[in-house]
Amino acid sequence: MANPPVAIIMGSQSDWPTMIRAAEALDKLGVAYDARIVSAHRTPDRLVEFAKGAAAEGFKVVIAGAGGAAHLPGMVASMTHLPVLGVPVQSRALSGQDSLLSIVQMPAGIPVGTLAIGEAGATNAGLLAAAILATNDPALAQRLQDLRAAQTASVAERPA
Amino acid sequence: MANPPVAIIMGSQSDWPTMIRAAEALDKLGVAYDARIVSAHRTPDRLVEFAKGAAAEGFKVVIAGAGGAAHLPGMVASMTHLPVLGVPVQSRALSGQDSLLSIVQMPAGIPVGTLAIGEAGATNAGLLAAAILATNDPALAQRLQDLRAAQTASVAERPA
Amino acid sequence: MANPPVAIIMGSQSDWPTMIRAAEALDKLGVAYDARIVSAHRTPDRLVEFAKGAAAEGFKVVIAGAGGAAHLPGMVASMTHLPVLGVPVQSRALSGQDSLLSIVQMPAGIPVGTLAIGEAGATNAGLLAAAILATNDPALAQRLQDLRAAQTASVAERPA
Amino acid sequence: MANPPVAIIMGSQSDWPTMIRAAEALDKLGVAYDARIVSAHRTPDRLVEFAKGAAAEGFKVVIAGAGGAAHLPGMVASMTHLPVLGVPVQSRALSGQDSLLSIVQMPAGIPVGTLAIGEAGATNAGLLAAAILATNDPALAQRLQDLRAAQTASVAERPA
Amino acid sequence: MANPPVAIIMGSQSDWPTMIRAAEALDKLGVAYDARIVSAHRTPDRLVEFAKGAAAEGFKVVIAGAGGAAHLPGMVASMTHLPVLGVPVQSRALSGQDSLLSIVQMPAGIPVGTLAIGEAGATNAGLLAAAILATNDPALAQRLQDLRAAQTASVAERPA
Amino acid sequence: MANPPVAIIMGSQSDWPTMIRAAEALDKLGVAYDARIVSAHRTPDRLVEFAKGAAAEGFKVVIAGAGGAAHLPGMVASMTHLPVLGVPVQSRALSGQDSLLSIVQMPAGIPVGTLAIGEAGATNAGLLAAAILATNDPALAQRLQDLRAAQTASVAERPA
Amino acid sequence: MANPPVAIIMGSQSDWPTMIRAAEALDKLGVAYDARIVSAHRTPDRLVEFAKGAAAEGFKVVIAGAGGAAHLPGMVASMTHLPVLGVPVQSRALSGQDSLLSIVQMPAGIPVGTLAIGEAGATNAGLLAAAILATNDPALAQRLQDLRAAQTASVAERPA
Amino acid sequence: MANPPVAIIMGSQSDWPTMIRAAEALDKLGVAYDARIVSAHRTPDRLVEFAKGAAAEGFKVVIAGAGGAAHLPGMVASMTHLPVLGVPVQSRALSGQDSLLSIVQMPAGIPVGTLAIGEAGATNAGLLAAAILATNDPALAQRLQDLRAAQTASVAERPA
Repeated sequence: MANPPVAIIMGSQSDWPTMIRAAEALDKLGVAYDARIVSAHRTPDRLVEFAKGAAAEGFKVVIAGAGGAAHLPGMVASMTHLPVLGVPVQSRALSGQDSLLSIVQMPAGIPVGTLAIGEAGATNAGLLAAAILATNDPALAQRLQDLRAAQTASVAERPA
Repeated sequence: MANPPVAIIMGSQSDWPTMIRAAEALDKLGVAYDARIVSAHRTPDRLVEFAKGAAAEGFKVVIAGAGGAAHLPGMVASMTHLPVLGVPVQSRALSGQDSLLSIVQMPAGIPVGTLAIGEAGATNAGLLAAAILATNDPALAQRLQDLRAAQTASVAERPA
Repeated sequence: MANPPVAIIMGSQSDWPTMIRAAEALDKLGVAYDARIVSAHRTPDRLVEFAKGAAAEGFKVVIAGAGGAAHLPGMVASMTHLPVLGVPVQSRALSGQDSLLSIVQMPAGIPVGTLAIGEAGATNAGLLAAAILATNDPALAQRLQDLRAAQTASVAERPA
Repeated sequence: MANPPVAIIMGSQSDWPTMIRAAEALDKLGVAYDARIVSAHRTPDRLVEFAKGAAAEGFKVVIAGAGGAAHLPGMVASMTHLPVLGVPVQSRALSGQDSLLSIVQMPAGIPVGTLAIGEAGATNAGLLAAAILATNDPALAQRLQDLRAAQTASVAERPA
Repeated sequence: MANPPVAIIMGSQSDWPTMIRAAEALDKLGVAYDARIVSAHRTPDRLVEFAKGAAAEGFKVVIAGAGGAAHLPGMVASMTHLPVLGVPVQSRALSGQDSLLSIVQMPAGIPVGTLAIGEAGATNAGLLAAAILATNDPALAQRLQDLRAAQTASVAERPA
Repeated sequence: MANPPVAIIMGSQSDWPTMIRAAEALDKLGVAYDARIVSAHRTPDRLVEFAKGAAAEGFKVVIAGAGGAAHLPGMVASMTHLPVLGVPVQSRALSGQDSLLSIVQMPAGIPVGTLAIGEAGATNAGLLAAAILATNDPALAQRLQDLRAAQTASVAERPA
Repeated sequence: MANPPVAIIMGSQSDWPTMIRAAEALDKLGVAYDARIVSAHRTPDRLVEFAKGAAAEGFKVVIAGAGGAAHLPGMVASMTHLPVLGVPVQSRALSGQDSLLSIVQMPAGIPVGTLAIGEAGATNAGLLAAAILATNDPALAQRLQDLRAAQTASVAERPA
Repeated sequence: MANPPVAIIMGSQSDWPTMIRAAEALDKLGVAYDARIVSAHRTPDRLVEFAKGAAAEGFKVVIAGAGGAAHLPGMVASMTHLPVLGVPVQSRALSGQDSLLSIVQMPAGIPVGTLAIGEAGATNAGLLAAAILATNDPALAQRLQDLRAAQTASVAERPA
């Protein structure tokens, strides 16, 4: 059986209520994924192993969520040529401003495509991962367009 | 002749000194692109036309750079299912903090993969676009890995 | 029957508890309005149709509220010559700082008159729309002045 | 001779290099204005006299620019029912973040339509003042649309 | 009977739960005060009347609290030569960052001695007003020193 | 000979180009002062000696300027009952935002009357010190009012 | 009996729920400590006495926590050559941004090793104090490594 | 020959003008160090090798400087039990605010003792490293105290 194309990793169990939104978005689009906890700081070996092996494992896109001094997305990106999408998890004291800057302000050479702080960002990471896969999968591209159309249709004309 | 896979668009001529870094990154990797000025605010029709036609034009990835109330990346994303990468151009008064928040804080449903403020972000948008294309292009994936290896090799052992 | 002079649009149903304050302010002043949901990101066609047709529909002023990467006010402004007033809706992670910067930091050429974050801003958008209409409506100008006078009279002399 | 419909006021002579952009925008559109220095802090009597008399003087719209603890726009707004547009002048230490918050965060009841920090904001204040006047001046509305069209036409297709 | 030496003014009834801390501090030190609501934006005439008459009324120090675009302290300062102390009331969306900058960033020529955001700032405004009066009142100076000594004595040696 | 009533202290020689504005303001008003370098961090003994002895030395008001983690004003305030005014010196990386928060956010019990960041704040510290002394010095109060009147008279009617 | 090597001091009883995390971390590693309340502002004499005597008391490392205008860590550092670690306690209005800047932005010459805002920072201050002591205590170094290993082992493979 | 006790590492050659201040501080105190470039993002293998081997190499303290999304200090800390000190290098767009938050906001379990943004922080990292070594080196402790005394003596009494 083929490996799933998307890895969803997060720095901590406590990030899952945010990152599950990425999983839900992929579920809606019929894209398989593997969700794992990989802590840059508490499990650095797991980080290295995951990042270096991600392409060989068959992953095509990595979604990484983390909060505070959020090093996971950037460190994974430093060890794989796969596209890495970063989700800044909302932190307690600084509401995710630290997470956002730690993820998005990568130096030239190692990109992380960063999404919004919190659940909206996680949902969008799932959608963007699908859009990336859809560049070579017309059926998925069609499902994405259908999802968009349904989303558009769901917007009421007037507030109530 | 095939269309180039990457569109680099920007809100203004004044964004080009930043966005040229995306072009240079793609040049290094042998990825063709088309660079255009599309102002969300001054040329909204061009924006709609571009965004709705981007997939049909053969583009696979869109890189959009803008500054201040930077609406270009998000508005393009709202009208295409292609992956859109956003580059916050450094603004005068707020140093790109406005650009960053205007691009990255997209609502659930419409993702923009956002890179760092300024030239580093533009370079990385080029690299991430290539990484996206490389998910289905082993030769490009190899060139990306070679570029990474060269980048690693170029780091001196000691400061001088 | 004449069309109402003010359009109140918002990016999402969830913005209504904020934007209803604009409606209430207009109600107090006897100014008619039409409230609609127009999502820049989820309903871009509706956005274009609304913005391009707003003047022909008979609207004189547009009030647009949105949160996060709040592109609605600026994009409407890019497609109409009517005065556009923007209300930054308070966002979850960043308390509306993202909404504010996304709305107010428009480039030269396309203005959005921006009000305060949240309900106070929505109330004031209603009042400012009325003030705009009152530049050519002495009776409305008088009602505005009366409202101001009542507001002044309602301020107690001492705290209790 | 009729009084000009727009007042451009500013807190200090040093604000003029910013606020002149409002004057230039009005010049382009053939809208007359009167430019004055009114310091909320150094000339409070002039402030009161100006604000209370603005409507009787024949002004239809007030543009007020100030920096730092920028109280001028809000204080004028507190003493006139005319629409007041605020321009946050870029301050030295905080780059206009103080000016912006001091102007835009008005309490419910007294609106100030706030534009971007600095010269872009001043230009847009001129344009928005014209748009307000144009709600009752079809010829001006046409000139505004022509300016917009020229602005759109001036955007090059490609960066160079 | 002599007028009280300290005026405590605030922009709104809703500021009283904060500003009452200033009153309590003055109570502890036996300094009389008069607490009033003076809204810069809703009661500008009352503001002018208060500020211009404060010295003649016998006040020696003015404590002014306000939130958001907090213009009250600075505007009072512009119309009196008495020392004015400003208390930034914690605002809803921006937690008093707007209040703080609107109060503290006064231009050269018109000072406002600004205290911390919220209740601590209000307490300290009361204490600082007393310290100002104590520069010419040895008995009050002694009471201040006693209060300080009691405060020091109240700090436990170890946490529990 | 009587000691001067105002102490101007600063954390470093490099603060003098800012703090000299306080001296100049006092000079204009004929108020004597003593300017000293007292570094909270490099000369803590001097800090203690100064703060504890300030009242006995005859000072009536202390002006303290410092930048970055600016502890000087608050620490002086902790050891004297004299009114302490703080000037946040503009810092290199953070433009004085660190200085401002370090000075203004004092806990309940120990007030520091804080002025604006940089030279304007230093000027205003001088003026506020004079206003404090003027609460018991009618001649100085008159000089302050004259300075204010001259300041008002110096504001041109129109920008040029 | 030997004195404990670590002092945990805090500005107020209200900091203890945060700072207890430092104590807990040291407990886990078998490192003794003494916890005291030392308020820079309310008990400056205690501050001087503590800081000047800390080395002679036998302390090797000082952990200091404070919030708002947090002067305690830096002032202790100014009066001892022992390593000082600072914990920014989360403040009410500004969520610890003021605490962080007041602690970390020390001038050249007087270092404070600053940890994260809030409880995570307090835990880490305990761990870093232990790491400092472990530079000369192989058994403690081993316990630190064991704690790290246990921490790594405790991270689940997958979210649930 | 014994290895030097301090490692100074930095993410890029461009960080050296900042980090050389750490070297200079150590030079003054007669503490040996080794300065290396270790890029978390461009040389992740070097990072792992360095961090895992640092203790065995004989280092006692690690000083790590980086800018932007500054992951170097935290990632080194995740792979060594040695004390790690972080220096936020001043970044272009955000003046080191991103560097600071990326370094200081570490999660509980992996501490980084963070110094000020820029050169002052680098100097202080050198001094703090020396203070750590001095906990077990009385001669170095004496040199630190002498340096402090000289620093104190160098502060002039009055500004000039």
